[in-house]
Parts: sequence; C-alpha cells; structure tokens
Amino acid sequence: MSSERLELPEPSQAVLRAARALLRSKERKASGTFLAEGPQAVREALKQPGVVEAVFFRWAAVHDHVDLLAACREARTTHYAVSEQNIATISDTVTPQGVVAVCRQVDVSLEQGLEGAPRLVVICAQIRDPGNAGTVIRCADAFGADAVILSSDSVEVYNPKTVRASVGSIFHLPLVVGVDLADAIEACRAAGLQVFATDGEAGTELTDLTGRLAEPTAWVMGNESWGLPVEHLRLADTTVAVPIYGAAESLNLATAAAVCLYASASTQHTRVDAG
Amino acid sequence: MSSERLELPEPSQAVLRAARALLRSKERKASGTFLAEGPQAVREALKQPGVVEAVFFRWAAVHDHVDLLAACREARTTHYAVSEQNIATISDTVTPQGVVAVCRQVDVSLEQGLEGAPRLVVICAQIRDPGNAGTVIRCADAFGADAVILSSDSVEVYNPKTVRASVGSIFHLPLVVGVDLADAIEACRAAGLQVFATDGEAGTELTDLTGRLAEPTAWVMGNESWGLPVEHLRLADTTVAVPIYGAAESLNLATAAAVCLYASASTQHTRVDAG
Repeated sequence: MSSERLELPEPSQAVLRAARALLRSKERKASGTFLAEGPQAVREALKQPGVVEAVFFRWAAVHDHVDLLAACREARTTHYAVSEQNIATISDTVTPQGVVAVCRQVDVSLEQGLEGAPRLVVICAQIRDPGNAGTVIRCADAFGADAVILSSDSVEVYNPKTVRASVGSIFHLPLVVGVDLADAIEACRAAGLQVFATDGEAGTELTDLTGRLAEPTAWVMGNESWGLPVEHLRLADTTVAVPIYGAAESLNLATAAAVCLYASASTQHTRVDAG
Repeated sequence: MSSERLELPEPSQAVLRAARALLRSKERKASGTFLAEGPQAVREALKQPGVVEAVFFRWAAVHDHVDLLAACREARTTHYAVSEQNIATISDTVTPQGVVAVCRQVDVSLEQGLEGAPRLVVICAQIRDPGNAGTVIRCADAFGADAVILSSDSVEVYNPKTVRASVGSIFHLPLVVGVDLADAIEACRAAGLQVFATDGEAGTELTDLTGRLAEPTAWVMGNESWGLPVEHLRLADTTVAVPIYGAAESLNLATAAAVCLYASASTQHTRVDAG
C-alpha cells in the first residue's frame, strides 16, 4: 500500500449510492447532475470552474491519472478512491475506465446559447440515438460551432452514452436542450443566422452553396430514421442535400452533420483568414 | 392463414442450423458465406447476381416485404418463411427486422479491386470497431469511391454489426480484405493514385490541398484509438489533418473519413462537371 493511496479518502456508502443513482435519467433530472466517465471527459469537466462536484478514482488506476488528481487538489474538488467493484457500480461501460466524475448539468438557455454573434450553430431535431447525439456534439466542437441545440423529443444529453461519445465536448460549447424546434429556428434567425436544413431529397446540394457557406449559419439536422418532416423543412431558408455520388441511399446522421459543418467551418475560416 | 403464407416453404432444422452457424466468424470463414439482415441489406444483396443463397422471412412480416419476395421469385432464389422464434436465432439484433439472407462473401483481390483507373479509394488500417468499419464503407459508397481496402488486423467485414452499419453498401463497391498495408499502398500508387494518410498532427490540412484533391486519391485511415503509427504515415505521399477549429481533440474515425471523402469527391466531381 503506497503512501499516495493512503491519502485518498474512501466515499461513504451514501455518497456512492447517490452517484450510482445518476445512472438513471429520473435521478439526473431531480438532482441537476450527471456522470462523466473516462479520463478525457473528466479532464475537460475539471477545466470548467464549478462543474465537477466529485471525482471517483479506482484505487488501482490512481497512478494512471496523476494529472487529474493534481487538478482535483488544485481546484479543491472532492475526490475519492474506490474499489474496482465499486467503480463498476457507477460506470455505464463494460470495461470501466477507472475514473468517474459527478458533474453539474451544463446546458444553458436558448438566449445564452446564442449570445455574442454566433457564426455556426447546430440544431438537432428529434435526435434519438445517444451515441449519435454525442458524436454530433463532438463534431460541432471540432468545427468550432458556437452552440448545439437539441430540440424537445431528443435524447437526454446527460445519458452516459451521449456523454461518452462526446469525448468531453459537452463541456466545450454551449448546449441548449428541450426547446421547440420552431422557437430554436426563430431565435437563430433573430441572432442573424441563415437556416439550412438537411434533406436527402433537396434540390440544392451542399456543393451549390459555395459563397453562402461563409455567412453565419444554423444547420438543422433531422432524426436518424425519418429525417425532417415537411413541416420542419419549411421552417428553413434552404433545404440542402449532401451530394451522393455512389449507390448508397444516404449517409448516417453523424457523418452528414460532420460534412455539413466542415463545409461551413472551412469556408468561414478561409474567408476570415483571407480577409 | 392466408394463401400467400401457404406458398412459402419452411426450412428444415438443418438449413436453419447452417444459417445460425454464420453468426460465428469461424463458420463464416469455413463456408465463405455470411448473414445480411434487414430489408435494405437484403434488397441490395438481391440486386447482385449470384450473391444470395437463401432468404428467410418472418411469417408475420412477409407482407411488409412483398418487393423482396418478388425479387426472390424472379431470381429463383431459395426463400423460406420462419417463425418469430426461429428468425431470432439467426439474427444479431435485439429486435430482428424480419428478413435475413445467407450471402456469398463478396470481397475481391487487390488487383480486381483496383481495376479500371480508380479515382477514389479508401484504405482502412487496423480498423477494429465493427460499426465504424460499416459506416466507413457506407460513406465510401455514398461518395462514389471505387473500392474499400481493409488491411489485415482489421475487423472482419462479414461481422453482422459491420454488415448492418453499411446498410447494403458492402454490395455496392469492391471490397478488398486482409492485405498488408504496405502492399495495398503500393498497389494504389501503381494504379495511379496519390496516397493521403490522415493524421491529426499533420502540418498539411485538408483545406490546404485544394487542387490536389481533384487528382485520383487513396485515403489511408488509421485505427480509431491510436491512428496511424509513424511507419505507416511514412508510406503516404502526404499526411493530412482535418482542420479542428474548436476545442475537441479530434474527430472519430467515421466522421473524419466522411469529411476527407466528401472533400475529394466533391472536388473531383466539380472538376469533371466543369470540364
């Protein structure tokens, strides 16, 4: 038993039980907190002041995460060491990664999400797959989006699978959840954004947009199975198809989002750089 | 019991057992066949002459798949109706989609895969996640790639999860499996393709390539966790990073592949259209 090990307190059963409860949506809603698992997610959470309530390290993995331990100590964040058996009870994965944080929920209001002249925003309409939602948030972060909005009827963003697929990105950019799609689109337009909605059947292809991609844009992405219904497509300024050059019928949601956001971001950044 | 139902034969226990065995990699290898599940995959398989050996319809779902039934009859493909209980035993999914086909494996040799002056090829090096592999194949198909090559040490392409994630695309374009990465790259170069390898640390960004993207290209994509090791990066003509404008450390494999393939395909097609 190393001296390092002795310095880390063990959580009480009540503390562990409260953390474990956050695997359930209802408890996340009631407490306003959620679990972030894995070194990358915990590292990014710790960078945001006031987000992390507590960190649980697996005893045997403490020495793999000395940077996180140091970050906890510096920020005076409560942290514990737990057994392999106990960390498994607060983990959503088959092979727990050895570190889990209890975090305060980070979503903001629609007004806050669109503050400060946004140039690139993603609106997910009725996104249902937790992994897809996390991957879209990661893509939005990678391409420098100013906010991600998930309409009501979307998957809960604090679902462990969504948090994991975002690989820390949920802590990087403003997230807005549970808003009506029409309200989200109206607010984006009021914030000076043109509104593009993706639709495989659209007459306008992404490659046709050229110069328009440089303008501040909100991209509306539909559900993974049924896309965007006509009444939602009508809310956009333009419906846009990712061009399909081969025999596939469509792209999946996350890859379509990646392509649209890359097209916007690379055009916007090239123009900015050139100007 | 409708008259339609009476016309469909039931498989023998031996036939069902042989199909069920294909859930195991070893049996797929031994028989040279695999299972394709769901209406989209079965439809695309039936379009390829000589690929489908037999189709199993769930009794209760036959009327949802009259187009597939007609295609089976027209091609004189063996087909059966089975109980819900039996279809579950030849399905890899929690909620079986009611139709499963036994298909002959469709991969071709490296030489065949690169026949006919290819313009866009994807090489996956040590891709390990079955869903990722399927999604990359779907993207390659969508963007009109001429072939997908999976290096040895990659996931088996006939894994049910890979087949499912490809949504029928494995039947659309030449697939080459189990080749050494260096051999694959050499063959691509001999076929007139420039070789780009993705690497988050690369000094050249995708947006820097502009005109070069119009040239015939093989994209080498690395493993989802460790990317491409230095000795593999060295095999490429140019290492290329997808530009990251935000705080995310990277993109996941499938979204990075989508962006690179879109950049190549849209440039190649715009040039061709303009010329």
